[in-house]
Amino acid sequence: MGEAQVSLEHLFRVFTKPEHKDSKLAQIEQHLSDNILDFLSQHVVTKKTSLEEIEQDFSDALVPESPEFVSSHAESLLNKLVAHSVNTYSPTFIGHMTSALPYFHLPLAKLLVGLNQNLVKIETSKAFTPLERQVLGMMHNLVYGQDENWYQQYLHSARHALGAFCSGGTVANITALWVARNKLLGPQKGFAGVAKAGLAAAYRHYGINNMGVMCSKRGHYSLSKAVDVLGIGRDNLITLPCPLQTLSPELALAEGKRYQEEGNRLLALVGVGGTTETGHVDPLDELADVARELGCWFHVDAAWGGATLFSKTHRAHLKGIERADSVTIDAHKQMYVPMGAGMALFRNPQDANTVRHHAQYILRQGSKDLGATTLEGSRNGMAMMVYASLHIFGRRGYELLIDQSISKAKAFASMIDAHPDFELITAPTLSLLTYRVCPENVRQVIKTANPETRARLNNKVDGLVVNVQKLQREAGKSFVSRTRLESPDYDGRSITVFRVVLANPLTTEQDLANILDEQSRIARDRHAWKELSKSEDLLTV
Amino acid sequence: MGEAQVSLEHLFRVFTKPEHKDSKLAQIEQHLSDNILDFLSQHVVTKKTSLEEIEQDFSDALVPESPEFVSSHAESLLNKLVAHSVNTYSPTFIGHMTSALPYFHLPLAKLLVGLNQNLVKIETSKAFTPLERQVLGMMHNLVYGQDENWYQQYLHSARHALGAFCSGGTVANITALWVARNKLLGPQKGFAGVAKAGLAAAYRHYGINNMGVMCSKRGHYSLSKAVDVLGIGRDNLITLPCPLQTLSPELALAEGKRYQEEGNRLLALVGVGGTTETGHVDPLDELADVARELGCWFHVDAAWGGATLFSKTHRAHLKGIERADSVTIDAHKQMYVPMGAGMALFRNPQDANTVRHHAQYILRQGSKDLGATTLEGSRNGMAMMVYASLHIFGRRGYELLIDQSISKAKAFASMIDAHPDFELITAPTLSLLTYRVCPENVRQVIKTANPETRARLNNKVDGLVVNVQKLQREAGKSFVSRTRLESPDYDGRSITVFRVVLANPLTTEQDLANILDEQSRIARDRHAWKELSKSEDLLTV
Repeated sequence: MGEAQVSLEHLFRVFTKPEHKDSKLAQIEQHLSDNILDFLSQHVVTKKTSLEEIEQDFSDALVPESPEFVSSHAESLLNKLVAHSVNTYSPTFIGHMTSALPYFHLPLAKLLVGLNQNLVKIETSKAFTPLERQVLGMMHNLVYGQDENWYQQYLHSARHALGAFCSGGTVANITALWVARNKLLGPQKGFAGVAKAGLAAAYRHYGINNMGVMCSKRGHYSLSKAVDVLGIGRDNLITLPCPLQTLSPELALAEGKRYQEEGNRLLALVGVGGTTETGHVDPLDELADVARELGCWFHVDAAWGGATLFSKTHRAHLKGIERADSVTIDAHKQMYVPMGAGMALFRNPQDANTVRHHAQYILRQGSKDLGATTLEGSRNGMAMMVYASLHIFGRRGYELLIDQSISKAKAFASMIDAHPDFELITAPTLSLLTYRVCPENVRQVIKTANPETRARLNNKVDGLVVNVQKLQREAGKSFVSRTRLESPDYDGRSITVFRVVLANPLTTEQDLANILDEQSRIARDRHAWKELSKSEDLLTV
Repeated sequence: MGEAQVSLEHLFRVFTKPEHKDSKLAQIEQHLSDNILDFLSQHVVTKKTSLEEIEQDFSDALVPESPEFVSSHAESLLNKLVAHSVNTYSPTFIGHMTSALPYFHLPLAKLLVGLNQNLVKIETSKAFTPLERQVLGMMHNLVYGQDENWYQQYLHSARHALGAFCSGGTVANITALWVARNKLLGPQKGFAGVAKAGLAAAYRHYGINNMGVMCSKRGHYSLSKAVDVLGIGRDNLITLPCPLQTLSPELALAEGKRYQEEGNRLLALVGVGGTTETGHVDPLDELADVARELGCWFHVDAAWGGATLFSKTHRAHLKGIERADSVTIDAHKQMYVPMGAGMALFRNPQDANTVRHHAQYILRQGSKDLGATTLEGSRNGMAMMVYASLHIFGRRGYELLIDQSISKAKAFASMIDAHPDFELITAPTLSLLTYRVCPENVRQVIKTANPETRARLNNKVDGLVVNVQKLQREAGKSFVSRTRLESPDYDGRSITVFRVVLANPLTTEQDLANILDEQSRIARDRHAWKELSKSEDLLTV
């Protein structure tokens, strides 16, 4: 470690002089700019390194006493951090919702830091505040499609907000349910409202014994976080079974009514616009009817699927989303914006006022400071990345990207269907699908076997899937994730499946064919495969 | 607007080919890299532009239909966005907590986007997870200073967390009070705990009528947000007067006892380690005693002042912080990290388990996924910026920066004291101070006048201060913010003051002298000044 001088002169240089063009950090930067895929494939180590080994590199809890030269630190970032990062740009890493990003985000990231605005208030984000409001307006328009006059009225109104920009879908979901809670339990004669008086007093005032939020079992875990934070309680998140991966409106209505008849208050029904596990979309239009009948807030978590609205071909999947009271969309998912760009959108631009707050030196009454209606305070100008992307891609550009992802997912589903070693478990609605590896003869037998045998065989296959997923990941060439899903074909019991997200535009069908090949090869080498394949013993394994 | 081709080929180029070196975006990038101060002073417009004018540039709520060329978009970002941003690097903009940043953050920002890790889980942030844990460990060490063995035990433990990294101080404060709430109202025989059962049930189980959080009137507005979100209610944030800018331990104890005797439960006492308005630090050690006597959680909001711990000279101001149950520190303040790096630290590494949660495909039991104990879900790897800064500055580098900020603030206070046109209102503890412009003769008279005259004169001076602050800002050369403070010298009534934050290392004493000069010139030109200066009429103005 090169120890740098401890002097104000040296420190001021760090603030005022860029690194020399031949320095390590400048080299890293140049390589990133010239060819990021090459940079990553050169520096990200593909061989298996255990987490414990990596932790060794990050095990000192002492703040270093003396300064280090930027270049020697850059060297150590390369070796310790970049080397063991995940190559999210790789076309064969199809197990995450992260993806390659367009090149222009690299220089924009630099501009963002160079400007270093703080969006909590206008004073430190003069142009970023209107920009963020415009971005929220555009996304609101995409979902709710009000007319031009309507947006002229609300877009820059100090007394309204079309949404809240935040770091991600979790905060967006919390914000949406916070607004819903504060609206339902708002001020009344003799009661200051939940925001001021608190939740226990609100329950007393409104005669509520228990209050809940309803969604399917595929609802994102952030909903459970939200009901914890908001004081509603995790046990009051009613998660309904959805063996077919989408929430049945009939079931939602029946359970909602039952819940209400038992003396509980239903705060919100949450529909999912693209589940994290399988990309399924709840029947939003019918769920909007259910919410209306139950008289509760309707929130749609479209963190993943919201961007599908750009596509004329596929936006019908989300029909009914325009009837939601609030909608979550993550721009860092299918909008190809760097990590950290979530949004909660509100149909009614007055609703955000239920969480509005003021302070003396900031967020003054009548100001347009964004911090007055967001959960976060100080935060950065990520909205610029969304703004740039909306312009550089345009609706038609995003449409092409969405359409090609979904058609690639369908093509992959066909490849899986046609391959004797694999079983498609959930076909793609959006660009996600799940499948598993399983000898053909087992697939024949398992459907007709008795439940006990079926469970035994599925256990065995589960183990095989886990094994193959792990070995493929460790081989370092490709990555497919896994999860467990209830399957209607298997008595509603959970099975382990591969999960694929076709988010990366750079992934080709050849990449997908290679991934299947690799999985098949790994699987056929396993002892479990051989055991399962002996069809004569099948019923006695 | 150059309309780009709507084709997959064009879009793929956006993902795979960097912009040409002569392109607009590449030029912007080069200029930023070569000389950011020059870039900003060349592109940020200093003449006054009204917010309404800027909003005109961001008034279209329609997603553009067709793609735009990156370069023509870059041009429009320069003209619309950069032009009307706030020059946070300027040494004469001393009214914010944002500042110039060290150069190395520009290339690192690019690396961050290039890696685009998602810190919610290990799978998408293999090395970033241990890195973030190390950063939290280092900051924990700075505050709590446990021994090496202790950190070896907890730093990478899957069942513990030394803190939570988040987008900023607001989320950090919410997280800290969330943990406090869930711990106080935790599971007991016959009760599942507030996380599961909700707040109303918890109040019933624990026989709580009302629960509150106590802090001084100078507590940050995010505390009010926190008690709203958490269901405690804004009316249950007990804000105690602090005419001397710090919370009196005697008052806190007396009010806390009174509150408890009235049958309420006190959840937490919050001490401030550097108030946003004046940079004062509450007497943390004595407040720790108070919290112990009251039997409540002790949280310290050191979002601003936490970094003072790097300085051997000044860390004594924060004595007692090591007795806090939780501490908030923002790295994007005095640690010179780009916007979006807050931390909540926990003395007891088990406490974060009170908010721990799991899901099937993520945050599995026993995993080290960071998302299991943070409020946010998906988020970016900002911890890398903190990590790099801790190494590149080292403790001694930060010490120099902190020391020079505070000594500059003291020098500025002396300049104000010595200047006949100004009155120092709060002297700097950390690098903040407040003062006002006021003719010398008024300052003589006002102290001995009767309360009514005093109030009348102060009203007049308030108007002058508002005016000068506005005109100086509009002149575009420098920026000092303003706030209102209760003043013990003026019957505890609020007066309007200039507020200065000496965060920017590039600010020189000459800059400060110039700012005073400019204010004095502007003030002396005002009608109010002339009126006030006629000493014979003073008592009848």
